[in-house]
Amino acid sequence: MKNLTLLTDLYQITMMNGYFKNNIHNDIVVFDMFFRKNPCSGGYTIIAGIEQLVEYINTIEFTKDDLDYLTSLNLFEDDFIHLLKDFKFTGDIYAVEEGSVMFPNEPIIRVKAPLYQAQLIETALLNIINFQSLIATKASRVCYSAKGDPVLEFGLRRAQGPDAGTYGARAAVIGGCNATANVMAGKLFNIPVIGTHAHSWIQKFESELEAFRAYAKVYPNNALLLVDTYDTLNSGLKNAIIVFNELKEKGYKPAGIRIDSGDLEYLSKKARKILDENGFEDAKIVVSNDLDEYKIMQLKNAHAKIDSWGVGTHLITSKDCPSLGGVYKLSGAYENNKFIPKIKISETPEKINNPGLKKVFRIYNKNNKAEADLIALDEEIIDINKDLVIFHPVHTWKKKTFKEYRVKELLQPLFINGESKHIKKDILEIQEHTKRELKTLWPQYKRLTSAEVYKVDLSKELWQLKNNLIDKVKPS
Amino acid sequence: MKNLTLLTDLYQITMMNGYFKNNIHNDIVVFDMFFRKNPCSGGYTIIAGIEQLVEYINTIEFTKDDLDYLTSLNLFEDDFIHLLKDFKFTGDIYAVEEGSVMFPNEPIIRVKAPLYQAQLIETALLNIINFQSLIATKASRVCYSAKGDPVLEFGLRRAQGPDAGTYGARAAVIGGCNATANVMAGKLFNIPVIGTHAHSWIQKFESELEAFRAYAKVYPNNALLLVDTYDTLNSGLKNAIIVFNELKEKGYKPAGIRIDSGDLEYLSKKARKILDENGFEDAKIVVSNDLDEYKIMQLKNAHAKIDSWGVGTHLITSKDCPSLGGVYKLSGAYENNKFIPKIKISETPEKINNPGLKKVFRIYNKNNKAEADLIALDEEIIDINKDLVIFHPVHTWKKKTFKEYRVKELLQPLFINGESKHIKKDILEIQEHTKRELKTLWPQYKRLTSAEVYKVDLSKELWQLKNNLIDKVKPS
Repeated sequence: MKNLTLLTDLYQITMMNGYFKNNIHNDIVVFDMFFRKNPCSGGYTIIAGIEQLVEYINTIEFTKDDLDYLTSLNLFEDDFIHLLKDFKFTGDIYAVEEGSVMFPNEPIIRVKAPLYQAQLIETALLNIINFQSLIATKASRVCYSAKGDPVLEFGLRRAQGPDAGTYGARAAVIGGCNATANVMAGKLFNIPVIGTHAHSWIQKFESELEAFRAYAKVYPNNALLLVDTYDTLNSGLKNAIIVFNELKEKGYKPAGIRIDSGDLEYLSKKARKILDENGFEDAKIVVSNDLDEYKIMQLKNAHAKIDSWGVGTHLITSKDCPSLGGVYKLSGAYENNKFIPKIKISETPEKINNPGLKKVFRIYNKNNKAEADLIALDEEIIDINKDLVIFHPVHTWKKKTFKEYRVKELLQPLFINGESKHIKKDILEIQEHTKRELKTLWPQYKRLTSAEVYKVDLSKELWQLKNNLIDKVKPS
Repeated sequence: MKNLTLLTDLYQITMMNGYFKNNIHNDIVVFDMFFRKNPCSGGYTIIAGIEQLVEYINTIEFTKDDLDYLTSLNLFEDDFIHLLKDFKFTGDIYAVEEGSVMFPNEPIIRVKAPLYQAQLIETALLNIINFQSLIATKASRVCYSAKGDPVLEFGLRRAQGPDAGTYGARAAVIGGCNATANVMAGKLFNIPVIGTHAHSWIQKFESELEAFRAYAKVYPNNALLLVDTYDTLNSGLKNAIIVFNELKEKGYKPAGIRIDSGDLEYLSKKARKILDENGFEDAKIVVSNDLDEYKIMQLKNAHAKIDSWGVGTHLITSKDCPSLGGVYKLSGAYENNKFIPKIKISETPEKINNPGLKKVFRIYNKNNKAEADLIALDEEIIDINKDLVIFHPVHTWKKKTFKEYRVKELLQPLFINGESKHIKKDILEIQEHTKRELKTLWPQYKRLTSAEVYKVDLSKELWQLKNNLIDKVKPS
């Protein structure tokens, strides 16, 4: 990963300088990263990008070039530039495990660090986590529709720049995709890569038949032929079957066909029938062409004869919801050795943050289904030998009592005193974690539309603290 | 720019190997990059990313690591890996000038190169040009709405990864933005950067007034105060005016206020009035909060008292249309020293490409307004001393005759025999070019909605060639 130190908003640096000049830059503060809405109006969010966040923080360094540039802005004096020169992150970061399923308003990442350090990292942290979590979530929706069929990530050419294509492919695999066409992502993250040929291959030869033969000659064990360059059923499939028969005679097993345009339901059913009639029951049908979770669901419901799904633009850009609005809010500060919880008031009640140093419990029933999350203050403990009563933070009469349950603390140490505690995992391990997480969710939270809202409540102590602070700022 | 050599789809490499094994990899071919629809259903597209395309091509190099990775896939033999080891782009690329206004279906970039080289670069070329052109176009729409007010790019935290934030900021400036908050973009592309403080600054101090004072102490010449942390009119603005008066007494001129939530029309009008009444007629009102071109237009129409516009998520992700579908299609190949035009047929008529080695003329009237574009074969010339008749490629009875006109050839050499002919320009020069280009467009093509369709016709020769090829593939 390249050095992302300057990947920040200028106001972070003007604030850092302001804190420095006011001599409070070393005050220890607490910021929470959280989001307010799940992507695509869904019921959950998959958190991804934790590994890149760790790399980013580990490699923060203002180079001489960077410092010269900042000096050239005529905003900062030498003493501050010197502070940046020696910058090293020394704080604590707690975060959920990469690939975890999370919900609105709960802390995903908690940063406790000297003020000027916590401020610098806000923008890159949000940039990294927002995007990868968005794509991991979108991918999990697409894979949900495909009901276990392989889903292949094809979107690099429409991705929002090189990083979006590459980190997007990584996130797509965390969300459940089986492979990517992006070679760089394959190399960097050890993701399975797939790829055969394009329409241009067909066009380059005198005839489609000749093109298929030339391809099968080079890749006899992987002859997946794109059949829609001229006419899917009347030309492409006919020629493919000629070549498949030639391969069969030589003892090879043809891989199958890809269809990239037209009515995929009709064409796949027709193609399946013709392939089967010609003895190619094992030949797979792969489709692509502006697919998303809704089109895949429609095709699955119509029993289209499709074996795997190449998903491009809609996945890599999360086209119908191309941003996750994760935010990073000050929730407390140590002043004169005393922790002061902080709140930001907004006319929009959802925008009022939860103050204090917090943690998140997930409550599971005895069948390992997640029943609710509880945001609590860091010092709180839950005695699972006692009943647990939780209540809705707004409609407080909505209560729920747990009798047989277990709890898990979701925030785990990622950095302690600036030292990384992160253990790098293989991408498929992270994918497995996501799959296990999704299994703990009741089906109603996984619907593509009209998903139920998972319970995220506040502990009594936190609820009380929040309301006291609101009363203080907005006395009646 | 980092080495993007592996930023490609695996099928490019499997095809390159296939061509190599069939010994046609050195055949010279022609590919066109074009798009079929303008972003956001608009009337035009601003092309951006040309500079990054040049850097990408100049730095293509398969490192030992890359080659080891490709070898590990067990798809390629040593002779092909050796070809990659020595890879150097040796072809010709013609492209429009960065910042140009272009329209659907016309070649933006024309690549003429040995087949295996032209194939490798497809994916990165599309990735780079699609994204930057998308954001430049979105930015020009936002700036169109703002009617000359400064527009500030604020989107890094919601951008689709680090590159999207940084190249997106670059593209936003090409499209007309005045500055960015992204420090890395500022440094890399010499873009003006702006930034003051966040809500967390206010929260960190005992009171809002104290926070404003602390900020004004450090930045007395640039005291732009964010007034909506607790209550915009009753707290923020009141405290800002106290601090503004203190600054005034010391001989400083307060910069103004920023409002980041609430009803921006109402609040800006109220704030303007109060600022004026207190003698701060020069203090600016900057707003942000999920702005896009439509919200800005609404606020402008309502005469909101806003001086500049901070635009984040909607601009940096082009939220309502987050992809530009640029494609790269084979349009011809030299076989046995003869140029063979190539076509791809599709059941969807818009998807049939224009064959041949082509160029694009823009036709201007004597007042320098662009009247139409004409796609022609490379050998065609236009004699401007004669009337020019063009016709619609589908509804051929729709004709137009030009009498007094001039023409400009839009595709210019970017690489010749692998050597870059690109002259790097300052970002503000590119922005100026875009502004000049937009001035040549009639207003009906610049509307945000219901834009007229600009004429892009085919020369008679090209039209004839295309129809002959279609007849050959699809005989009646």
